[in-house]
Amino acid sequence: MDWIDKLKKTISEDIWHTDSALLESFASDQTEDLVYMPHLVAKPLNTEQISLILKFCTKHKIPVTPRGAGTGLSGGSLPTLGGVSLSLENFNQVIEIDEDNLQATVEAGVINETFQQAVKEKGLFYPPDPASKGSCMLGGNIAHSSGGPKALKYGTTRDYVLNLEVVLPTGEIIWTGADTLKYSTGYNLTHLMIGSEGTLGVVTKIVFRLLPLPKHDLLLLAKFDTLEDACKSVPQIFTKGISPSAIELMERNAIEFVQKHGIETNKALASQMLTDEATKAYLLIEVDGNDLEAMMDDCAGINEILENNNCSEAQFADTADQKERLWSIRRSIGEMVKFHSIYKEEDTVVKRANLPQLLHGVKSIGSRYGFESVCYGHAGDGNLHINIIKGEMIDVNWNGPHLEEGIREIFRLCKKLGGTISGEHGIGLVQKKYMNEVLDPIHFSLMKGIKNTFDPAGIMNPGKIWEE
Amino acid sequence: MDWIDKLKKTISEDIWHTDSALLESFASDQTEDLVYMPHLVAKPLNTEQISLILKFCTKHKIPVTPRGAGTGLSGGSLPTLGGVSLSLENFNQVIEIDEDNLQATVEAGVINETFQQAVKEKGLFYPPDPASKGSCMLGGNIAHSSGGPKALKYGTTRDYVLNLEVVLPTGEIIWTGADTLKYSTGYNLTHLMIGSEGTLGVVTKIVFRLLPLPKHDLLLLAKFDTLEDACKSVPQIFTKGISPSAIELMERNAIEFVQKHGIETNKALASQMLTDEATKAYLLIEVDGNDLEAMMDDCAGINEILENNNCSEAQFADTADQKERLWSIRRSIGEMVKFHSIYKEEDTVVKRANLPQLLHGVKSIGSRYGFESVCYGHAGDGNLHINIIKGEMIDVNWNGPHLEEGIREIFRLCKKLGGTISGEHGIGLVQKKYMNEVLDPIHFSLMKGIKNTFDPAGIMNPGKIWEE
Repeated sequence: MDWIDKLKKTISEDIWHTDSALLESFASDQTEDLVYMPHLVAKPLNTEQISLILKFCTKHKIPVTPRGAGTGLSGGSLPTLGGVSLSLENFNQVIEIDEDNLQATVEAGVINETFQQAVKEKGLFYPPDPASKGSCMLGGNIAHSSGGPKALKYGTTRDYVLNLEVVLPTGEIIWTGADTLKYSTGYNLTHLMIGSEGTLGVVTKIVFRLLPLPKHDLLLLAKFDTLEDACKSVPQIFTKGISPSAIELMERNAIEFVQKHGIETNKALASQMLTDEATKAYLLIEVDGNDLEAMMDDCAGINEILENNNCSEAQFADTADQKERLWSIRRSIGEMVKFHSIYKEEDTVVKRANLPQLLHGVKSIGSRYGFESVCYGHAGDGNLHINIIKGEMIDVNWNGPHLEEGIREIFRLCKKLGGTISGEHGIGLVQKKYMNEVLDPIHFSLMKGIKNTFDPAGIMNPGKIWEE
Repeated sequence: MDWIDKLKKTISEDIWHTDSALLESFASDQTEDLVYMPHLVAKPLNTEQISLILKFCTKHKIPVTPRGAGTGLSGGSLPTLGGVSLSLENFNQVIEIDEDNLQATVEAGVINETFQQAVKEKGLFYPPDPASKGSCMLGGNIAHSSGGPKALKYGTTRDYVLNLEVVLPTGEIIWTGADTLKYSTGYNLTHLMIGSEGTLGVVTKIVFRLLPLPKHDLLLLAKFDTLEDACKSVPQIFTKGISPSAIELMERNAIEFVQKHGIETNKALASQMLTDEATKAYLLIEVDGNDLEAMMDDCAGINEILENNNCSEAQFADTADQKERLWSIRRSIGEMVKFHSIYKEEDTVVKRANLPQLLHGVKSIGSRYGFESVCYGHAGDGNLHINIIKGEMIDVNWNGPHLEEGIREIFRLCKKLGGTISGEHGIGLVQKKYMNEVLDPIHFSLMKGIKNTFDPAGIMNPGKIWEE
């Protein structure tokens, strides 16, 4: 195409890719089995090159889809209209860890876990830890305000961002705020960028605040015969004044998928966890802090609540290795479900105490609409991941109005329970048709007005978040 | 005026006020000695009435300035173009404290401290505590993302808002998000509203998240012979892994104003604090938590750092009464300075470890430009309140280009130190001319685009945040 040659001429370095194998690897992410080919992949080396690319694309109205590691679950990085797939993979430098101020400046393509490790070596702590932390990039975490287990005590990505370097679709390079813990200097463009899923500009650098690294953590695994009992314990822990660093829920069938498809060590532990046929759900509860005695007191308090809610067994993970295996099982569930079957991932979130009602509703809707679901996730946040399994369902049903109506029922229930359709995965491509369940036309008109202000040519990640 | 009569007819209840004494009380807030008369004060009783008022005012292009308690320090609630002063004082209900979910729903005109007390009675904790907490309203706190001492450990108002009921300037009533701890469902309109200083709509209801109430707090008062020594201790506390709930700085002259003008009990304590002529600054350091022993360990660690930084004396407040007196002194400083003289309040914020450089710069700029300053505030956040005293300065100098240039120098220094011109007080009227020191034309054009999307007729709190 004519524009491709013209665009390539704007930067005479080896950043352009049109070979089909590479284009294909940019055509999918972790969302279902969706494939949308870009025309061109750009792997710019610096912010100025991104500025040149966006300027050109605004002028010529070429779609640009920013891409981190492609671990997203809502299709946010799929180039649905082709155009340029803009990879941030060369933005992989931790620029500075400022120990005096407990801050760090990083490029947007740094892997989450790489960053966590780098600050840990300095005795510091960056809490957001999505299940994909080993591969996902911090820029992608900003796109959806990603969470993870530790969001329960420490908040999501949003809560750690102080300032962003952003290339606007028109090519200007701005910093959205200041490197300060407080900011009340006009509209908060930093918070507007966070969660905007690459539709308002390209985040290139991030200033994060950090915490001192907690010295200890304890991990409890608690077994229940019903999902409801597991969920009912959760709000009681907080009303008792205890603030665990994570409370994760895993339904029995989630662990079964790990038992079937996981790595060997995970398989073995999953088998143990499934020995008792009556077991229907697990809670994985982490308490962290600096004072082991106080943490043990908290765990005793938690144990009491678990017992009052018919917990059949609660055990501490004894070693660092045991802890890591349990976390590995929890983190791998999505991948294991995907190994078994294509699935639709719903990232529901409700008020914490309403989780039992949500779970009950999901199962009842599933049986009425004929789909199997695997439920797990961040019970402490009321953030339930629902994997709807395709299995043997034929394509026409999988993409048909009947299943869609079932999913709509789930989202209507979320709204009724004080919640919404995404807690941390974003809307992207696959959830946008459901947005009208929780937002009104006026919300969309505000969002579109904001979009138009930032991106007058409509080039940035078009076709996402809302339906045109 | 014609429009006043027409507007009054839209709501036939006793919510309209045009008597001059009342108009006058709405013509000023706590900012310097500024006076801007509204044409009319409305004290609506419910959200629907606000919707009717805004609809009318959008249609007839009448300026509307929302107003909480009028405790603002940047002139945000001053009706600079006249029109309607919209009081939220009747929105004074704590609607629900949801103990199961650690959430509360309140109306925007509830007094901050009233809310704190209400949740405290349930064993819950709402941390944001501006110095004006006894009179300021939660809606005003949202307008500027107000902080206070406890923001150090717990964050500002922003960090506690889950969802907002907002009346848009065009009259639509929306909820900006969901009542959930996580939210990744399109552009975050909640966070956009927070800190927008009443220029995008009127916040009428707020859903806050709450924390369990910490069981204990300890308060240390530490004395220093130089401001620099006081400030240098601060970042060292954090790098040691200790997270106090407050670290407040008070310069000697701040305490002198309390000694001169304060209530009797404060005067007495202030006198004691000033006994030693060599004392130039105090830090007030609070540690909170549930485990008294761990807190004492933290205080021991803090003490060691203080000693290493030439602290001449550090003492615990022994009783609840002593603590309250120290906090009362700290909170009353602004008022006591005002009692002495009109002053300009600068709400500077820099990276925490750069505070000594900021303080040094402020004093040096002051001596070059010939103004006296009183410095105090949230040292742990790098958020320094600088009160520039008018004293005997004649009006033409007070409002003249020379002083303005001095203030610009302070703000340029803030920017150089990674900071900005407001941490928690907002820009409002009096800081808008300095916004170009920290933001570029493109920032303004983005903000104006957002403004225009929400408020096409430009009626909401016009003349604030940026210069036209």
